[in-house]
Amino acid sequence: MLIGVGPELQWLAGYAAVGHERLNLLVIPASGMVTFICPRLELAAAEQAPGLGTGGVRLQPWAEADDPFRLLSQLLADADPASEASAALRLLISDSLRGAFVLGLQGVWPDATWALASEVLAPLRRVKDEAEVALLSAAAHAADRVVEAVTRGPLTGRSEADVAREVRERLVDEGHDTAEFAIVASGPNSASPHHEPGQRVIRAGEPLLLDIGGRLGGYCSDITRTVWVAGPDDVAPDDGFREIYALVERAQSAGRAAVRPGESFGAVDAAARSVISAAGYGEQFFHRLGHGLGLEVHEEPWVIGGNDELAVAGNTFSVEPGIYLEGRYGVRIEDAVLCTSDGSLTLNEAPRELIVISGV
Amino acid sequence: MLIGVGPELQWLAGYAAVGHERLNLLVIPASGMVTFICPRLELAAAEQAPGLGTGGVRLQPWAEADDPFRLLSQLLADADPASEASAALRLLISDSLRGAFVLGLQGVWPDATWALASEVLAPLRRVKDEAEVALLSAAAHAADRVVEAVTRGPLTGRSEADVAREVRERLVDEGHDTAEFAIVASGPNSASPHHEPGQRVIRAGEPLLLDIGGRLGGYCSDITRTVWVAGPDDVAPDDGFREIYALVERAQSAGRAAVRPGESFGAVDAAARSVISAAGYGEQFFHRLGHGLGLEVHEEPWVIGGNDELAVAGNTFSVEPGIYLEGRYGVRIEDAVLCTSDGSLTLNEAPRELIVISGV
Repeated sequence: MLIGVGPELQWLAGYAAVGHERLNLLVIPASGMVTFICPRLELAAAEQAPGLGTGGVRLQPWAEADDPFRLLSQLLADADPASEASAALRLLISDSLRGAFVLGLQGVWPDATWALASEVLAPLRRVKDEAEVALLSAAAHAADRVVEAVTRGPLTGRSEADVAREVRERLVDEGHDTAEFAIVASGPNSASPHHEPGQRVIRAGEPLLLDIGGRLGGYCSDITRTVWVAGPDDVAPDDGFREIYALVERAQSAGRAAVRPGESFGAVDAAARSVISAAGYGEQFFHRLGHGLGLEVHEEPWVIGGNDELAVAGNTFSVEPGIYLEGRYGVRIEDAVLCTSDGSLTLNEAPRELIVISGV
Repeated sequence: MLIGVGPELQWLAGYAAVGHERLNLLVIPASGMVTFICPRLELAAAEQAPGLGTGGVRLQPWAEADDPFRLLSQLLADADPASEASAALRLLISDSLRGAFVLGLQGVWPDATWALASEVLAPLRRVKDEAEVALLSAAAHAADRVVEAVTRGPLTGRSEADVAREVRERLVDEGHDTAEFAIVASGPNSASPHHEPGQRVIRAGEPLLLDIGGRLGGYCSDITRTVWVAGPDDVAPDDGFREIYALVERAQSAGRAAVRPGESFGAVDAAARSVISAAGYGEQFFHRLGHGLGLEVHEEPWVIGGNDELAVAGNTFSVEPGIYLEGRYGVRIEDAVLCTSDGSLTLNEAPRELIVISGV
């Protein structure tokens, strides 16, 4: 197994390396010593990582003028002279490994077969232990406070980009180590699920969708709320908006209620989706219900139709149905949910009912 | 050429997509129509990108339950039935493409040969135009102001992590869209070039190294300064520190002075390195002199011994020699430098001489 910089390395070794273009690689053979190859200038940083500096892993720095792939090839040949040329070698790479490194490794073992380390790691990573749940929970509560503070306003007259900036500042102020993303989508932009906040100015009489998250102790928050901006003249939501909001709220609640050990993720998706489809908006909910949440903001398990994997206690994932009416507006409500031994716990606590922001 | 989410896509199409686990792929054939494959839920976002929404590129969304690799295979077969199975196909992938996508693409074209898109793109990307230089320059000046504000103190008694947090906030306050990194290394930690800031408390009578940067309009700042924290009792730097500081300052100045069109990057590295080596500290300067700076904080050109590529006007890169005495302290001074038509321009303007911070 060949693990580069990314969430896999962080989970295995507690090392959030700088990364970029220099090869860092945790080499885990089927048997024998684990080796970590790292740039010489990051050796001191690697030694401080809990999973690398304690003696169980051989640290192998490479100097700035070295070719790390040649070094790797040599190391492996030294360790087991018979294996290097073997076409029977099966190598698992971390899913997030840079393409440039994948091709470099394939040059070292041209005859090997290649697969993804997530084959082995994802089933382990998606069951969170108590410490991980505590971090996810703390991150969720911090994000709750940001949503509540930002939606207090003022909102009208400000650009999406300006509100996104406030979101990022507050994510850190509320306890995240870093702000990771801030989708701020106003009016018709709320119909684009992954809208990039821009210079559009928020007006009275339209919705505002916030989909935001940060990282706390490595673990991610991810919450979405859609509010109605009534403005100084108190422009109430129209009936169409009230209808889709109520549907999404009901679907989201049904999705969360379906979570328990032994239920498939496909069935959880269906529990929420059927509410929206039955009302005739199935085509306007064109994404899966959710995604796992942990060291990555999107990771396994996937809460999607056709996924027969069964939920187990310790799974954490988002439940986030939406309805998107192109050219008009959209609604999405998202919480982080933990599967517990006898049901589920919703980690986010910000209100889910339709909030109408008046006066600002 | 197959370009996923990352700096290559941003440079080619002006699209900073969300990325993660869903395939976005710009498919550029040697001749014929360019296609952009994207998740259905990001179609509206892709249409707003300057290089994608204007008609020159065919947008091909895939639905949440589709296999995007099967779709890709079908698209290419439809476009040119003869090419799909061709072992003569040579495919260039973006260097930052996720490993999971690389293996997916290799499944679509098992007989193709694979190389990196940087072969084609890097020589283009590393010559910045006026608009890019303006953004790099604005980012550099914003980072200058952060260094100057943070080093005013207070410093003693605060943790590295706390100062790193201040750095990130100020990077945004001074005009960056996002803070990207904040190496804050105090005392002996300054001898670890890529130190991760932690709970160590800054004391009087030791150096503090700041290596910080953010992103402004997509383009990166990256500056390093090392100051001496004298504290309330005004503990002056020792002679050893003064010696290595003066050497690094002289080496950095020599490196910048060597930059001009037609000079090789290897020679620029040597100009700075020879100052440090001549004084006997060659082994303690164990990294290259610098790296290109643009949409990536590390990109081509590499300012490293053995690189025979010649600088041309429009290249932007860091010049950042250092001396690291393990267990004691280290010094690094880094600026962003632009190669101009007749020499060079240093984009950063924060003072480079040894600054002793007294009283705080």
